[in-house]
Amino acid sequence: MLHNTRDRSYAVPRIHFHQQLADLKDRLLAMAALAQQAVESAVDAYCNFDDGLCQYVRENETAINLAQREVDEMAYDLLAKEQPMAVDLRFILAVIKINGDLERIGDQAMGIARRTRELLETDRPELPVDIAQMGEQACRMIRTSVLALLDGDAQVADTVLTMDDEIDDLNRDAQRTLLGKIQESPECAEHALLAIMVSRSLERIADHATNIATDVIFWIRGADLRHQLSMAE
Amino acid sequence: MLHNTRDRSYAVPRIHFHQQLADLKDRLLAMAALAQQAVESAVDAYCNFDDGLCQYVRENETAINLAQREVDEMAYDLLAKEQPMAVDLRFILAVIKINGDLERIGDQAMGIARRTRELLETDRPELPVDIAQMGEQACRMIRTSVLALLDGDAQVADTVLTMDDEIDDLNRDAQRTLLGKIQESPECAEHALLAIMVSRSLERIADHATNIATDVIFWIRGADLRHQLSMAE
Repeated sequence: MLHNTRDRSYAVPRIHFHQQLADLKDRLLAMAALAQQAVESAVDAYCNFDDGLCQYVRENETAINLAQREVDEMAYDLLAKEQPMAVDLRFILAVIKINGDLERIGDQAMGIARRTRELLETDRPELPVDIAQMGEQACRMIRTSVLALLDGDAQVADTVLTMDDEIDDLNRDAQRTLLGKIQESPECAEHALLAIMVSRSLERIADHATNIATDVIFWIRGADLRHQLSMAE
Repeated sequence: MLHNTRDRSYAVPRIHFHQQLADLKDRLLAMAALAQQAVESAVDAYCNFDDGLCQYVRENETAINLAQREVDEMAYDLLAKEQPMAVDLRFILAVIKINGDLERIGDQAMGIARRTRELLETDRPELPVDIAQMGEQACRMIRTSVLALLDGDAQVADTVLTMDDEIDDLNRDAQRTLLGKIQESPECAEHALLAIMVSRSLERIADHATNIATDVIFWIRGADLRHQLSMAE
């Protein structure tokens, strides 16, 4: 009888703890949805020179910053009160890092919207760059890394790492082509520079998605994948 | 007698734990020294078009990446084995975040060196921008945030937050002046674009120093200062 009581008193907090972990994951996924929406809206705002969307990205950023605080506080509380071990500890640490990357994705989206806004009233030259395509690739990487987190699937996370090379190539091509355009038509310099900055922001957003994927891998496999490539060079 | 023995058996692991915390701090400070050296060398490499320094930054980055892993592993081990509470838990979480920011400072320095290298063999036009001054300001911010960490001094950390506004202004001025230069002398476009990218990297390095300062404040005061400005807007 005493034994049963003990078992139950142990089981209740464990269920409670796993419920809290599930809540933390849900909150992080909501944060990820906000970050992804920020990137999609910022790219649309740039492609269509849409002031309303720029404003939307700004409001969205406030929501992202609030969400980041909440996720961090939940994670800290769990660490302080539950003292989790092994895979649960790795999960909470991964959440803290992923949360930081999602907030930085929001920052980059905000930077795209802010710069777009500065040029709203000017003429828009035709530029030899496909920002929409780069935006889609960056969003695909965020989506895939979040899916890997949702399903706890390290193999899905692996695919994000290879996608990162593609966007690096797109960014390098964009920078080269746009520099040529500036030299050929200096009157386009302001818009071409904006496009270079947007391209670079998308490449950095892709880097953050890659960080999220490596954090998912760290959580699941317990391995630290960062810098393996640079160490192998 | 029994009481004394108990006291000692409690004291030994605590001393051991605090020694481990001190070791973690020392390791993080060594990591900070590497990151600061990377920025100084990258700015020198850019200002003097020095290939040797570009190479040095590259080697330094490998050392930074290794150091980051070590710091992270030490922090994770402490969390898993010692289950620290309150101020110690906040310190270890701050270390994990600061470690990430230092690694990103190294990345930005590496980006400056990589771009500088691409232009080593070309003519160097006189450009209306003081990258050395921006570099000094960014390094001052890293130094000050690390000092705040070393002394556990939140007031010193506060000063970094105000320094960030100055470098934002310098970056904005540099971007505007260099865009004017590109429009006026398109043959300088490649170098002016490099200068714009370097200026932007230094501004991002300053952002990371600001993140470090807010993490120090979080550790000491237990308050989360992030986004207070954006929320007050």
